Amino acid sequence: MGTQKSRIFKWMSWIVVIAAFFLTGFIIGWFARPTHTDHDAVSHSYLQEFLDEMKAENIRQYLRKFTRLPHLAGTEQNLHLAQQIRDEWLQFGLDSVEIVPYDVLLSYPNQTNPNYISIIDDRGKEVFNTSLSEPVPVGYENISNIVPPYNAFSAKGQPEGDLVYVNYGRTEDFFKLEREMGINCTGKIVIVRYGKIFRGNKVKNAVLAGAKGIILFSDPADYCAPGVKVYPDGWNLPGGGAQRGNVLNLNGAGDPLTPGYPAKEYTYRYSIDEGVGLPKIPVHPIGYNDAVNLLKNMGGEIPPNNWKGDLNVSYRIGPGFKAEFNTQKVRMNIHTNNQVTRIYNVIGKIQGAVEPDRYIILGGHRDAWVFGGIDPVTGAAVVHESVRSAGKLMARGWRPRRTIIFASWDAEEFGLLGSTEWAEENAKLLQERGVAYINADSAIEGTYTLRIDCTPSLHTLVYDVTKQISSPEEEHDGISLYESWHKKDNWTGDRDAPRISKLGSGSDFEAYFIRLGIASGRARYTKNRKTEKYSSYPVYHSVYETFELVERFYDPTFRKLLAVAQVRGGLIFKLADSQLLPLNCNEYALSLSKYAHSIFQLAQKHQADLLKYQVSFDSLFSAVDNFTAAAKDFHERLKDLDMTNSVEVRMVNDQMMYLERAFVDPLGLPGRPFYRHIIFAPSSHNKYAGESFPGIYDAMFDIENAKDPVSAWEEVKRQISIAAFTVHAAAMTLMPPA
Amino acid sequence: MGTQKSRIFKWMSWIVVIAAFFLTGFIIGWFARPTHTDHDAVSHSYLQEFLDEMKAENIRQYLRKFTRLPHLAGTEQNLHLAQQIRDEWLQFGLDSVEIVPYDVLLSYPNQTNPNYISIIDDRGKEVFNTSLSEPVPVGYENISNIVPPYNAFSAKGQPEGDLVYVNYGRTEDFFKLEREMGINCTGKIVIVRYGKIFRGNKVKNAVLAGAKGIILFSDPADYCAPGVKVYPDGWNLPGGGAQRGNVLNLNGAGDPLTPGYPAKEYTYRYSIDEGVGLPKIPVHPIGYNDAVNLLKNMGGEIPPNNWKGDLNVSYRIGPGFKAEFNTQKVRMNIHTNNQVTRIYNVIGKIQGAVEPDRYIILGGHRDAWVFGGIDPVTGAAVVHESVRSAGKLMARGWRPRRTIIFASWDAEEFGLLGSTEWAEENAKLLQERGVAYINADSAIEGTYTLRIDCTPSLHTLVYDVTKQISSPEEEHDGISLYESWHKKDNWTGDRDAPRISKLGSGSDFEAYFIRLGIASGRARYTKNRKTEKYSSYPVYHSVYETFELVERFYDPTFRKLLAVAQVRGGLIFKLADSQLLPLNCNEYALSLSKYAHSIFQLAQKHQADLLKYQVSFDSLFSAVDNFTAAAKDFHERLKDLDMTNSVEVRMVNDQMMYLERAFVDPLGLPGRPFYRHIIFAPSSHNKYAGESFPGIYDAMFDIENAKDPVSAWEEVKRQISIAAFTVHAAAMTLMPPA
Repeated sequence: MGTQKSRIFKWMSWIVVIAAFFLTGFIIGWFARPTHTDHDAVSHSYLQEFLDEMKAENIRQYLRKFTRLPHLAGTEQNLHLAQQIRDEWLQFGLDSVEIVPYDVLLSYPNQTNPNYISIIDDRGKEVFNTSLSEPVPVGYENISNIVPPYNAFSAKGQPEGDLVYVNYGRTEDFFKLEREMGINCTGKIVIVRYGKIFRGNKVKNAVLAGAKGIILFSDPADYCAPGVKVYPDGWNLPGGGAQRGNVLNLNGAGDPLTPGYPAKEYTYRYSIDEGVGLPKIPVHPIGYNDAVNLLKNMGGEIPPNNWKGDLNVSYRIGPGFKAEFNTQKVRMNIHTNNQVTRIYNVIGKIQGAVEPDRYIILGGHRDAWVFGGIDPVTGAAVVHESVRSAGKLMARGWRPRRTIIFASWDAEEFGLLGSTEWAEENAKLLQERGVAYINADSAIEGTYTLRIDCTPSLHTLVYDVTKQISSPEEEHDGISLYESWHKKDNWTGDRDAPRISKLGSGSDFEAYFIRLGIASGRARYTKNRKTEKYSSYPVYHSVYETFELVERFYDPTFRKLLAVAQVRGGLIFKLADSQLLPLNCNEYALSLSKYAHSIFQLAQKHQADLLKYQVSFDSLFSAVDNFTAAAKDFHERLKDLDMTNSVEVRMVNDQMMYLERAFVDPLGLPGRPFYRHIIFAPSSHNKYAGESFPGIYDAMFDIENAKDPVSAWEEVKRQISIAAFTVHAAAMTLMPPA
Repeated sequence: MGTQKSRIFKWMSWIVVIAAFFLTGFIIGWFARPTHTDHDAVSHSYLQEFLDEMKAENIRQYLRKFTRLPHLAGTEQNLHLAQQIRDEWLQFGLDSVEIVPYDVLLSYPNQTNPNYISIIDDRGKEVFNTSLSEPVPVGYENISNIVPPYNAFSAKGQPEGDLVYVNYGRTEDFFKLEREMGINCTGKIVIVRYGKIFRGNKVKNAVLAGAKGIILFSDPADYCAPGVKVYPDGWNLPGGGAQRGNVLNLNGAGDPLTPGYPAKEYTYRYSIDEGVGLPKIPVHPIGYNDAVNLLKNMGGEIPPNNWKGDLNVSYRIGPGFKAEFNTQKVRMNIHTNNQVTRIYNVIGKIQGAVEPDRYIILGGHRDAWVFGGIDPVTGAAVVHESVRSAGKLMARGWRPRRTIIFASWDAEEFGLLGSTEWAEENAKLLQERGVAYINADSAIEGTYTLRIDCTPSLHTLVYDVTKQISSPEEEHDGISLYESWHKKDNWTGDRDAPRISKLGSGSDFEAYFIRLGIASGRARYTKNRKTEKYSSYPVYHSVYETFELVERFYDPTFRKLLAVAQVRGGLIFKLADSQLLPLNCNEYALSLSKYAHSIFQLAQKHQADLLKYQVSFDSLFSAVDNFTAAAKDFHERLKDLDMTNSVEVRMVNDQMMYLERAFVDPLGLPGRPFYRHIIFAPSSHNKYAGESFPGIYDAMFDIENAKDPVSAWEEVKRQISIAAFTVHAAAMTLMPPA
């Protein structure tokens, strides 16, 4: 019995011990099972590889390769380039690459009946004709298919008449002309200089003023930098060069014949008469050598000094020529044709590993007016190198959390057509799934420092990414891009950080940002905005945009383009691969507050009216306060987020992704149904200028010319109310969801 | 050594055994840890509890309680009811309940200057006046604040003139009158009978025809069922009863003064002149006793038989009275006032346990023209009982996966104002997060069978839920609601299942479904549509809609209302609590195909024109095929879904949730910016009638009257193209996301 008891006792002890070990094992097993991996740490090391993999020399080679021939939208050469890009992106390792066609309205000069402008004598004889083309740069003499300077979508026609000079052709220039100088443009041909605003706005203003034609010229005051030689000895515009460009007023419609819908085979097309934004008068661009001949004999008053350019003429406003020449008229000879033409986007994808239904887009255009030395191929070369680098990473086992889409857009120069049609076709997907759009147009327009235009929620990410990139500036060797940028372009007195600007329009982000409300940004190297006062870069849209222009003058080492590639690439990498989206709602709050104060300040010049018509901005300020509190609370709550709960992570990411969408109003801005962003849109008076609270801004602009001030102020009040509503509604999207 | 060896051997054996047990424990622990619970099985048993908890007797009591007093929108009594509902919903256990006010344009009779219609003699003396109010039913004699019959938003005025009788006042009635009978309504007062179409469309047609006033009367042909006595001895409309109702043409705008935006303190209000949809002429409703007096002496032609009602008059069309009475005129005396008034929604919430950012809404209105015996309190009582039952479940530990929102809307009778303003205020949240909206207006309009109007993706769920509910019909005791419904209203020849109809408009789902694109449905008990030909239910919008009406004639056992409560409740329960959303995209495909064939058939009556103007429906059929394939593939892929991967489950749920959204076009239907659903919207000619492909339908309707057939057919082609695009785009949302 004793031994039996002790044996039982022994066995029981063993069982207890075994059970204890089993239990220990069980418990350890239970808790040891990982519920997530530390994705972000792995991702961070891949980011460094991604940035390091990009090489200046590759960008140089891509720029060389893609600028040998012209790549005008709608030409076979540009289709071939699309095919080449598709093939190379596939070789680089993207999951899929497709060519996506649309049939859109383009516009070309008549090849047998060239466009030009004449001075004619009283018998109709041409005593002077403008040049039919630009002198071709050395090395490109045998290239065919160089389209001569023209304004795409110009009306056809041969209007004859007296010239009137209207400075830059801005709204305020026409007002000055009509109201202060008492000159009526009806039936006249207006001549305006390029610069300050988008050329389409100049044309619209000329039509409103009653002009029957409009000539756009490049003045050396706006297209030559002091002390710089003209191309090929420097980067200034030669006298025989001229700026091409479309003169549409699309306001975001895309293809003029299929507004709102993709230009597919089944899509209804309006007739050209009903097309959106097509000017009703002839328009033609000339260089300054030709402009001198048109301007030098003009009569009429001497204009104010700020209407005078740098040509050796007196810039008299006309109408018409001075006494000795007053039998002479000007005749425009414009034979440009509109025609529906097939264009091709290239769309490449890397499917997201965890959230394939979240899209990060890096898109830029491929079509160029001629060689595209800067515009767009500096951008396209940068995208190409980003794709190559991403492919390398994928070969090493990386795959981003979210889907990355690379796009090579067509027909940007004809009104952002390729990007807008694709946005239209994919609108429903993009609205639900679009996280961010990074634009990749020209990567350089100057050699001074970095320029970023982006939505406020991307500010912090831009700073983070630029801190991880080396400055490409020789005098700033060894410091980060952030630091050299900060030294050169600090924000303002009230913030010690590099300046970031608002997005305007004029490039392919438009449909994504202003119509669909997807967080967007762009990056490029730029000039010193304080000292370099010329418009854009001097040879913009001329035949002199060549590979050599960039290699000799803009970026001989290609390190600046590399830095831009790393910024654009770094942004999409972080957006695609961070578990928590790197968007900052507090920055949006800060910007909204700044914009509200600034529009309020703008209104103060009408103080008497504000009282008289009971116009208050209180509701807007109160909405901004509300938004500010909601953003702050949102980021506070993020600190307690359980990162292992994938549904909770997705919920807050959705809140951040949809924040930009909350600023979109399906009703659009007044008269501009495709500009739907209530916080950011171009001014109605200049497509290039991004305005904050554009509805209020435009309504206030109209006060100055209002025939009926009561209803003009009512419109201001209505716009303030819409802005206040939108900001309140956006605040709600950041609050706890139930 | 031997024993030592053997001891070592023994210890090693033990260690091995222990390690083995440890390992076994570890492995079992590793795999035993549940990565998810079988949520759906638990949910299913809660569903049964939820349905069983609802009681007919409670619905009876709520109906009794909520119909003692009038609850006109904008009155104190309706505010008190809102507060009572809020308090009781809180007691029932909702997480939060709020009263949400808006200040909208309402319309009331002038209390000191009543509305009526007179026949006047040649000296202007009133020889007959219509009654100022309805005889009050027994038991309600001491109730004050019964608003007399009126048409809300009528213009004020006292137009005098000759009557013209225009049948139901439909577009085709006015065409017949003007084109076949050659009668011009300019300057006339038209008199039309209620029924067939929404009264606002009648008023719009009268205005278009040039009438200066319009009288709406209830004809016994349309408001009395054969063999049924008038109330209180039966459920027919007494001769002294009249139908109240608004006569707006809002087309989904909500508050007429704040279209597109919530009517909050900061919101810009248009002046009444600029308000949306307000008729420019006086409108007044009368009963058939009064109508006889206006009609009996009318002169002019005898109309076609289908213009004749059941009154003992000849229904001559006028203009004016017959010879003996031709010095007599009719004068309308309308003093109704528009005024901005505060209304109150009650919003109750149960926060979702897993996905609080996904919303299922059960909403119905609370405001009534008088007692609301049927409209809306049968609906409100049903919602109340659903809330109580949900509260009971919560007390037992249940919490739905997604957030449930219960809404008691105000001012539905004035143009769906409460529901639309709330949709406007929360548009951005609803667009991102709205899964489904179930409407809860009148729960009974007849005693025959169930009536469901819903979006196609809800078909399967409706069938599933009704199979779990007992039929309330005595002759069908022991079978399911699905079965009794199936017996009484089989779909058509081509499908053996109970009929489900398209959603039209006229109730609060409008903004959610047609503007925002949230999957929606409604359920009620209805009459036999094959045999019961009267409009709506006879006492609709009269003072005779009382508790007793329902208790005596419509649902003495309250089992039908209980069944409706279980259907509405069952739908929201399953939508809120199923891990995978119970939406069926294949059903949408099937419906789209049916609609495409049906609009194609409609076009066949213009076969010559179709050829002449090259109108093809091929693109639409091809889009539908594409959608059908995408839906099929989507549901195939669902079979392989890893239900333990919560991000993957959320992705496919998002695809299903956003499918309905994909049919919404931000540009809206032509001239109707707030009707944005391309597949479903009311016809422009009758707000109550839900049309499929309404853009195409309306464009084809206009062919008949087109002055310029070329542009009319161009519009048809444009609408076909928009429909094809929309269906293609919706198909893309169902494809693999990258």
